[in-house]
Parts: sequence; C-alpha cells; structure tokens
Amino acid sequence: MKMSRTSLILTVIIVILAAALIFMLVGYKNQPPQSRGTTPLIEIESMEPDSSQWGINFPNQYSTLQMTESNNTRTAFGGSEPFSKLEADPRLVTLFAGYPFSKDYNEERGHLNSLTDVRATKRVNETTAGTCYSCKSSDNPRLWSEMGMAEYDKTLFMELGKKITHPIGCANCHEANTMRLIVTNPALDEALKAQGKDWTTFTRQEMRTVVCANCHVEYYFKGEGKYLTFPWEISTRIDDIAQYYIDEGFKDWDHPNSGAPMIKMQHPEFEMYTADSTHYKAGVACADCHMPYTRDGAAKYSTHNVQSPLLNAEAACGQCHTDIEYVTGRVSTIQEQVNRTMLTTEDVIIAAIKTIEAAAGAPDVNTALLDEARKLHREAQLRWDFVSAENSMGFHNPEEVLRILFDASELARQAQLKAIQAAGSPQVIQGQ
Amino acid sequence: MKMSRTSLILTVIIVILAAALIFMLVGYKNQPPQSRGTTPLIEIESMEPDSSQWGINFPNQYSTLQMTESNNTRTAFGGSEPFSKLEADPRLVTLFAGYPFSKDYNEERGHLNSLTDVRATKRVNETTAGTCYSCKSSDNPRLWSEMGMAEYDKTLFMELGKKITHPIGCANCHEANTMRLIVTNPALDEALKAQGKDWTTFTRQEMRTVVCANCHVEYYFKGEGKYLTFPWEISTRIDDIAQYYIDEGFKDWDHPNSGAPMIKMQHPEFEMYTADSTHYKAGVACADCHMPYTRDGAAKYSTHNVQSPLLNAEAACGQCHTDIEYVTGRVSTIQEQVNRTMLTTEDVIIAAIKTIEAAAGAPDVNTALLDEARKLHREAQLRWDFVSAENSMGFHNPEEVLRILFDASELARQAQLKAIQAAGSPQVIQGQ
Repeated sequence: MKMSRTSLILTVIIVILAAALIFMLVGYKNQPPQSRGTTPLIEIESMEPDSSQWGINFPNQYSTLQMTESNNTRTAFGGSEPFSKLEADPRLVTLFAGYPFSKDYNEERGHLNSLTDVRATKRVNETTAGTCYSCKSSDNPRLWSEMGMAEYDKTLFMELGKKITHPIGCANCHEANTMRLIVTNPALDEALKAQGKDWTTFTRQEMRTVVCANCHVEYYFKGEGKYLTFPWEISTRIDDIAQYYIDEGFKDWDHPNSGAPMIKMQHPEFEMYTADSTHYKAGVACADCHMPYTRDGAAKYSTHNVQSPLLNAEAACGQCHTDIEYVTGRVSTIQEQVNRTMLTTEDVIIAAIKTIEAAAGAPDVNTALLDEARKLHREAQLRWDFVSAENSMGFHNPEEVLRILFDASELARQAQLKAIQAAGSPQVIQGQ
Repeated sequence: MKMSRTSLILTVIIVILAAALIFMLVGYKNQPPQSRGTTPLIEIESMEPDSSQWGINFPNQYSTLQMTESNNTRTAFGGSEPFSKLEADPRLVTLFAGYPFSKDYNEERGHLNSLTDVRATKRVNETTAGTCYSCKSSDNPRLWSEMGMAEYDKTLFMELGKKITHPIGCANCHEANTMRLIVTNPALDEALKAQGKDWTTFTRQEMRTVVCANCHVEYYFKGEGKYLTFPWEISTRIDDIAQYYIDEGFKDWDHPNSGAPMIKMQHPEFEMYTADSTHYKAGVACADCHMPYTRDGAAKYSTHNVQSPLLNAEAACGQCHTDIEYVTGRVSTIQEQVNRTMLTTEDVIIAAIKTIEAAAGAPDVNTALLDEARKLHREAQLRWDFVSAENSMGFHNPEEVLRILFDASELARQAQLKAIQAAGSPQVIQGQ
C-alpha cells in the first residue's frame, strides 16, 4: 500500500497532461472544419471560379463535390437521375401547355452537371436571357461583381455563355480563404434586405440553410431587363407569393386552353422548408441532411456530394435519429400520401382547364365570369406547382404541402364552377 | 498515504453494498407498477364495478382517476370543458340537420362524468337503445357476462339504466387482481377476431393502446337488436369503413336538405392514431401521452387522470422530448392548419347540401344524377366527420387527417357538380 513520493508526482503530472490533451482534442473536433488551424496550402483568389483550386486546400470537400457529377441515382420520387417528368406523368403536358416546360422537363442531376444540363435543355433558345445562368455556375460571383447583376441579366444567354466555363462550385457559397458561408446571389441579398434581414448577422447554422437559397427558391425575371427577382416582398409563404404576382401584374405565359395568365413555379425548397416545418423549427439546416458530417480518419467534414438524404440515410438521418428503418419508413408513407393527393389535384386542375375551354366556346358566354374562372385556374395551378416543383415530394413540410394541395384543388373546383356559370349550362363540364 | 487493512476491507464492503442497492432500486423502478411485489390489501372480485374497492390496493391510480371528475379544462381545440360544439361552430347545425347531434353536441368531460353526461344529453329519449351505455360504465363487463351483449343491447336505455350505477372505472380495462390490461367490450373482441387478431397475444405496450379501443372507436348499432358493431371488417381505414357501410346498406339518418343517407362518425381515435401515424409507428401507446408515468415518492405509476397531454406537457411529451416549448409549438401549428382546412371543408359540404336541395326542386330534375349527388354528399361528410369527431384536431395523425379532408372537400365538390348536372342549370349553385 505504499507509493513513493516521486511516482505519485509523476502519476499526477501524467493525468493532468492526458486530461489537457483530451480537452484540446474535443474542442478541436467541435470546431467547424474550416476554422481548424491547418495552414492552407495555397491562397485562393477572391471569387475564384475554379473549384479545383479550392480543392487543393480542401481535398475532402472537393472530392465529394466531384461525386455529384456521376451520382445519378433515382429515388422513389426524385433523386438525381435525369428522367423525363413529362413521360413519368403526362398530365404535366396539359398543365404546362404553351410553355417550354411542356416540351422538356427532366429531373435535375447533381451540382457538377448544372452547366451541361442548362445548355442541353430544349427550353433554351437564341432569345433566352442570360439570367438563366444565375444558378448554374461558379463564374457568377465574379461576373456579378464585374458586370453588375442588371447587366448580367440583360445579356443574352448565348452571349453570356462565352464567359461561363465552370458549373456550380465552391465560390457559389463560400468566401475565399475564410471559407465563410456567404450569400453570393445579389437577388437573394436584395430579397433578404427587403425583408429587413441582414444575413451577415446570421449564425453559421442559419447560413447552412440560407446559402441554399442562393438557388433553391422561387424566382422570376422582372421587366424588360429580365432582372432576377425573388417574389418575397410580402413573405415567403405561397399565398403571399401569389398575391405579390397579382400586385405586380406578372405572368409567365397564357395557358392556350383556359386562357389564364399563368405562373411557373421553380424549385421553392427554401420557402417550403422554412414555412414552420418540423425539422426547420427543430433547428435542422438543409446541410444537416443533404451534406451530413462525414469522417475521414481524424477529419470531420460536411460531404459536398449533395444528394437526396434517402441515398445516405444512415449518415443523413442518423445524425439525430437512431432507428433508420423507422425514419425512412416515415418518409415513404408521407411521400406516398402527398404523391397521391398531388396527382388527384392535377386531375382536378385539368378538369377546370377543359371546362373553361368548353365554356369559352359556348354561345353568349359571360366573359366577366369566364375571366374569374381563369384567375382561379392560375391560383390553383401555381399552388399545386409550388408543391410539384419543390424537390421533396412533400417531405420538407408535409402538413404545409397537404394544406396547399387542399387549397389548389378547391380553387380548381371553384374555377370549374365559375366556368359553368359563365356558360350558363352544365354541358360544358369536362374531366373527372 | 497509509490505509489500514481493516479500513480498506470496510470501504470495499460499503461500496459493494451501495452498488447492489442502486442496482436493485433501478430494477424495481423499471418494472410495470402492478408487477411489483406489494401484497394487495384486499382481494378484488372478478369484474368488480366499484372502483373504490380497487382503489384500496391502488391508491395512486384511484386518486388520479378521481381527478377526471372535476378536471374540466379547455384546450385550444378540445380538453374536457363541456362547451357546446354547436355554438362554437354553427355550421354543425346544418351538417347534422335532422339528427340529434344538431340539437345537443358538447365536448366530452373526463371519465368519471361518463354516466352523468350520457343521462343528461338531449340525444337520449325513451326509445334509445341500451347499447348507448356500452362505453359509459364499469358495470358493463359484469352485465355483458351475465346478460350477453345481444340481450344488453336489446334492452331499452331507460330500463338498462336501473342496473347501472358506476361511471367508467377500473373494470373497463383491467382484470381484477392480476391488473392485466384486457379487452372487455365484446364488440372490440369480435372486431379484432374478425381481423384474425388475438389480443391475448399482444404485448403490454400494445395493450396500452388497444384497451382504449374498448370505447374510443367508430361503431354502429347493427340491425333491430341494435347490436354494437365496429365497422372494421375490411380494415380500420376510413375508406374501408365507408365501403363497409355501403356494403351493409347502413345509414344513421337521412339528411333533410340533401336527402342523402348519412353516417354519423363517433370518436375514431384508435383508428386515426393507428393509421400509420408517426407516434404510433415509433411505438408510442395512447397511455404514454394521456396517462404518463408519474412519481409518488419511490412509486412510479401511470396517472389515471386521463386528459389532453397539452394540460400536462412536461410529463406527457417530456417522456421522450426534451424541448417542451418546441413540441407544444408543433402541436399548435398542426392543429391550426387542420382546423382551418376542416372549416373550409365544412363550407364546401354545406355548399353541396344546398345545391342538391335546390336541384331537387328544379323542373325536370334527373333523379339518377341527383341520387349520385346524394351518395357523394354522404361520402364527403362521413370523411370530414371522421376528422371532426376525432378528438385531437388532427394531431393524432396530421398527414392522414389532411389527406382525408382533401378527399372530403373534393367529394363535396363532385356532389355539387352532379347536382348541377341533375338540374341541367347552374342556377342551382348555392354556397361558396
């Protein structure tokens, strides 16, 4: 039971040193990856469009970004295989009649294919605005800085394309060298400012959602200059976005069958997710599920192989949930409920379109009532499209999505009833 | 640095004893309350209707059961204050026109008020069947055993009432002495058997949901004998329940305005919750939230003050969730979304009722089409009522509830369109 004074002192010193080492290691691991004190191998130029340069300092992030080029895997309702949405659901051809989306509408592929795919789509032609490049290239931050966004947007797509050589990359979300997450799209900066929000005051966890809004939002091309604008002036909720477009008197096209002034929704993932969804309210960021933390030996980093979390559920859901089979089962249940409800809504909107078309050909049609029917068709379809164009088949916010589909279907039935009243006869009733 | 051999031995013994004590206590606390080796003070007779007798052995459970008598607290959308649902939402008077629920329809109070309240309702009169007592008394298990359910149901309410003196109590869910959770309602036993299910093989955790189905279900009175029957032959999903009632040719009443053969839904909490809700799929039982575990010194027991978990969120939600403000916020968001959608559905159904009524008075009305419209009214309303009569304002299964409301509203619009076609003129269109 004896211990020499020397061994005791030595033991105490060893314990203190070991504790200090553990304390430091734990602190180190809790830091965001880019704040660790590794010396960067090279200095990155401000807004450097070439991601391979950034990759010299951040090989894990870069090599996972590269995976997005070939990771073309389909999930039950999405993924990154570029299947034709028009073939998968021919109702879309009727719904988007008269608009390029009725000709060519594919599921999107991973980030590194952005440039290839925007150049390949049949929706682009010699009159297309350069604005269409806004979400497609890491050359954008520098071009916006050099040209200004107004000039960028005024330039024709074919002309602007000569200056653009890189797909989506590091510079779209990061500040060079500090690696800080930043808003690079001037349209997002303006939209947030209009809401009285200053993104430079946001936490890093908030920015892990906000940088996705550089692209994953509803937007439109405002005025002759095709100025990229987010319709968030009232709020980012669908009913307020719809009201904004009414106030602006904006339309994307006229539907050739119903004659309604239509809006095409883009990919409003940010708006849908942040509309009080359960995950958003729990403090979960887009990157938590789509870019889950990954380990490479001692290094911990966000994978930049951005994809459906269903393709990587263990890592994506497993950050918070223990029972992966349960949570992926929940995703399936919800997506199937939403999909079935969404398809029914499409049938109802098509019935409205066809009834309005028949009513327009009726003798002595009441044009004021017919116009009301057209407005209701627009309101129904843009709400449905806010769900349809949103890449999650409802999972980003199930209750909000089902509520929106309820309203969309209800507005379409009101459109149909107005058309019948306009014609003065139920003989114009079409569809289901 | 010296320690005597004696003190060392003593210290080791004390540590071992303390560890053993902690180990035993933890094991004890993890046992279900009734399996603890306490000697019962008295022997309880089989199917003893008097809960105060059971209370001698189980004072905590009994004293909390007693709280249900006076705990009449209202929540945002429910609770146990007996407010008039008809005053809170006058649309119900139109929807239930011609049926007693349009005269008297109050929010239910706690378990101990069951007998008082069923005798006070204006829905009961001298022709009412005894079946109405099926969910109201702990005398039932013994009466069913003595009389048989068929005889019980055939007896008039006023006559049967002479044999009934106790409100809901211990005997409705427990086997005497073993305290095992059991199915006591023969209608539930028969419904489960018809589905090929044997409840005696269920786990205790499963039974903590299944015993609630002794009462908290949709049911009807079959045939002349008013035989209590659960419409689960196809499944417990609303669409299958609706089909079952079609197959049986059953109706509760004819709606005086639309002329439709109607079904009144009761309180299908069990069916809604078990329809793949997120909590059910996660293995959560009704009792986990409505009867959360409570401590009284060293004793741990399920409170029998059954009530809205919102009135006791710390204990109810806190068994699994750490952030109570977050989870109760989620409940509010969901319930508000569901409530708004449910009220819109009511407006749409009323528009259908009034349009059918107007169509029926039109000259040369097509009676075949009018009949189709009536059938659609029935289908719409029973789906809406499956949500409306279910006590959770959608929280038990938000996605399923919103999907059902979508279908209800859609079917009501189809009813309205059929009525217009039946009349041959849009002049019959009524409502919003």
